[in-house]
Amino acid sequence: MRLSRYFLPILKENPREAEIVSHRLMLRAGMIRQQAAGSFSWLPIGKRVLDKVCQIIREEQNRAGAIEILMPTIQSAELWRESGRYDDYGKEMLRFKDRHEREMLYGPTNEEMVTEIFRAYVKSYRDLPLNLYHIQWKFRDEVRPRFGVMRSREFLMKDAYSFDLDYEGAKAAYNRMFVAYLRTFARMGLQAIPMRADTGPIGGDLSHEFIILASTGESAVFCEKKFLDLQVPPADIDFFNNEEIARVVTEWTTPYAATEEMHDESQWASVPEEQRLSARGIEVGHIFHFGTKYSAPMKAAVMGPDGKEHFVSMGSYGIGPSRLIAAIIEASHDDAGIIWPEAVAPFHVALINMKAGDAACDGAADELYSKLTAAGIDVLYDDTEERAGAKFAIADLIGLPWQIIVGPRGIANGEVEVKNRATGERETMSVQAAIDRFGKGK
Amino acid sequence: MRLSRYFLPILKENPREAEIVSHRLMLRAGMIRQQAAGSFSWLPIGKRVLDKVCQIIREEQNRAGAIEILMPTIQSAELWRESGRYDDYGKEMLRFKDRHEREMLYGPTNEEMVTEIFRAYVKSYRDLPLNLYHIQWKFRDEVRPRFGVMRSREFLMKDAYSFDLDYEGAKAAYNRMFVAYLRTFARMGLQAIPMRADTGPIGGDLSHEFIILASTGESAVFCEKKFLDLQVPPADIDFFNNEEIARVVTEWTTPYAATEEMHDESQWASVPEEQRLSARGIEVGHIFHFGTKYSAPMKAAVMGPDGKEHFVSMGSYGIGPSRLIAAIIEASHDDAGIIWPEAVAPFHVALINMKAGDAACDGAADELYSKLTAAGIDVLYDDTEERAGAKFAIADLIGLPWQIIVGPRGIANGEVEVKNRATGERETMSVQAAIDRFGKGK
Repeated sequence: MRLSRYFLPILKENPREAEIVSHRLMLRAGMIRQQAAGSFSWLPIGKRVLDKVCQIIREEQNRAGAIEILMPTIQSAELWRESGRYDDYGKEMLRFKDRHEREMLYGPTNEEMVTEIFRAYVKSYRDLPLNLYHIQWKFRDEVRPRFGVMRSREFLMKDAYSFDLDYEGAKAAYNRMFVAYLRTFARMGLQAIPMRADTGPIGGDLSHEFIILASTGESAVFCEKKFLDLQVPPADIDFFNNEEIARVVTEWTTPYAATEEMHDESQWASVPEEQRLSARGIEVGHIFHFGTKYSAPMKAAVMGPDGKEHFVSMGSYGIGPSRLIAAIIEASHDDAGIIWPEAVAPFHVALINMKAGDAACDGAADELYSKLTAAGIDVLYDDTEERAGAKFAIADLIGLPWQIIVGPRGIANGEVEVKNRATGERETMSVQAAIDRFGKGK
Repeated sequence: MRLSRYFLPILKENPREAEIVSHRLMLRAGMIRQQAAGSFSWLPIGKRVLDKVCQIIREEQNRAGAIEILMPTIQSAELWRESGRYDDYGKEMLRFKDRHEREMLYGPTNEEMVTEIFRAYVKSYRDLPLNLYHIQWKFRDEVRPRFGVMRSREFLMKDAYSFDLDYEGAKAAYNRMFVAYLRTFARMGLQAIPMRADTGPIGGDLSHEFIILASTGESAVFCEKKFLDLQVPPADIDFFNNEEIARVVTEWTTPYAATEEMHDESQWASVPEEQRLSARGIEVGHIFHFGTKYSAPMKAAVMGPDGKEHFVSMGSYGIGPSRLIAAIIEASHDDAGIIWPEAVAPFHVALINMKAGDAACDGAADELYSKLTAAGIDVLYDDTEERAGAKFAIADLIGLPWQIIVGPRGIANGEVEVKNRATGERETMSVQAAIDRFGKGK
């Protein structure tokens, strides 16, 4: 993409309303624009990151056997009365009436609707296990939305729902999502640690939060350092081998790990002092097993192998992609701006023409742009007439993993500079070497 | 995808509520489920079609220079008061108050919000032209939603918005979208005819609807037969060559074409009788130029080359992907079910194992499945224990372009049958030949 034809509205000033670094950087880098309290538009580079994050989530959900659907944002109150949650849910639920005075709501989550879909079609244990997920906008009318997309009112959520005949099946489904989440966050360059969690308004008796460590994290967390050395399972792990998946879950749930609210001082005391890691964390995923909490009142039952009807045993599994992006920035930035992990970067390379209008610079930069683009590399080509210093600042701010810098002095020797945004390392090489370096990595 | 692990809830009975064929077939084929009046969940194969349709739209928008963003579904009433439309818009707008009693609405369209984004960042004509689009859910509280996703209340829309310094620039932007739409519909296997249209509540003085012909279409249309022979421009047309793009638009707007409401009997009379095509049509896209209708009241101005401030000249450009899918089915089905154009089919091939459990059939079908999948072909593999007749009926109903049928008699000779869903043509070939046929087409 040529920056001269793109829409990248960089802010020069620090926005006053931004209390945390991710919010500030997302506004400054032209990723988002606030439209109302807790409501944001995703501008072009923000949208690109959102798409990349969703695609990784999707691939790992699919790999673990979950199937993608898409439920609407608006739901009927009637459905929520069936589970009893319509009255339980407080003011966070956005309620309204349509033109025929029917009570409706903007879905804060989808347990009821997906249970309705399930019961309409699935009648036999032979059709299980089943896990349906969607990636859809949700609305929770927080009394005080803040921190940008970290705690917004309208937010994107991937929510998966598993249906099984019994607890044993449901536990296997839970384990599959547990492992899918480990893989999802690892692919985004994040160290996520599963911690036992409270089940809150979703209900149920088994729950884990996935927490990433960031010094600016929202809550205190306590865990053993050995988490940092655990291996995330490879892509070819067999998600339908229940024992193998359960072994991974055991490995990742045996060391001590707890958020502040679940913290147990006596257990913590038994962790050797040099193994204790007490840090700040950000929740990026939450999984729940809640059995028949929804299937029983909503009568979602299947015929079992015993010829009897059984209410299905369910779980739900959430990741907020919009929130996750803020969390990634909290975990990966420096004073100059964002440092994107490669897998979620809006573009792979910032190609900086230091002197647009100079024939030699233009020639080399145009060649790099067309050849790298043809090789399938996402390049943001700064072909504008800004001065070089401003271009460098923008490239650092938006945090693309690599910069290729084309300047008049280097080009006189046929050379460009390649800079790694994360390490700051710079290397001088020929134009052809730069093309080979990136074009072949693909 | 193995059908035994998939979620494809086929309905055996014709749903009584479905008045038109696309609604009936989408329900029967397990593409959608109604959740409330005019509100639908997209089940797995429906979601796959929706994704394919959106991807084609996106590619053609990008090719024409439009840039993708994503605006929220909920908007503030305040914004709509700026343009004056908050009071103009009737009961179709879903309005409500949040917990702080602020007036909000579910966006039926986004002219106001995108104008707000524009004016916040863009100050100079040098940053033009600009065209921002998003693909987002909208809500219009129709008094009588019907016809499934053809006229639903919650629906997906791709809406693009162009900003230019003056009418000449805006006309060029309009022309780019016009040509992008021709390409978009053609890629989906549709014959779409642009017809001059009324501008309705969007306002403005230039507008075209893109209409596809279908005998079950919602409205009468009148056009010259020569449209059927016009060529849609190739992918490498230069969207930034204004003259070339304008020539295409002239070519496609010169023959007579009108919907019922714009029909002019005296002009029609001058079309030679053998050239007249009077048919039924379905609107699948609508583009508008409306100049300063929003930019003037909302004060969206840029500095021109003359050093003066100019309200930008705008247009908007809509395609409803959810509605479009119903239109495709209206235009492409038979008594047995849907006939998907290849570009939007949920899977490319239905692989039917006529006798699951038979070692020879299983062996051949498994081999076909793994080799075609490895070659990047989307295969829906019916590995269930249903009887063969039911499997054929399902494959015809869901309308995948190709069927590969593995039966015990053929396999004894090492042969399978390949059926084209659209033509019904069948061909017998070796397993290897079938692998080569589909695997190499990729």
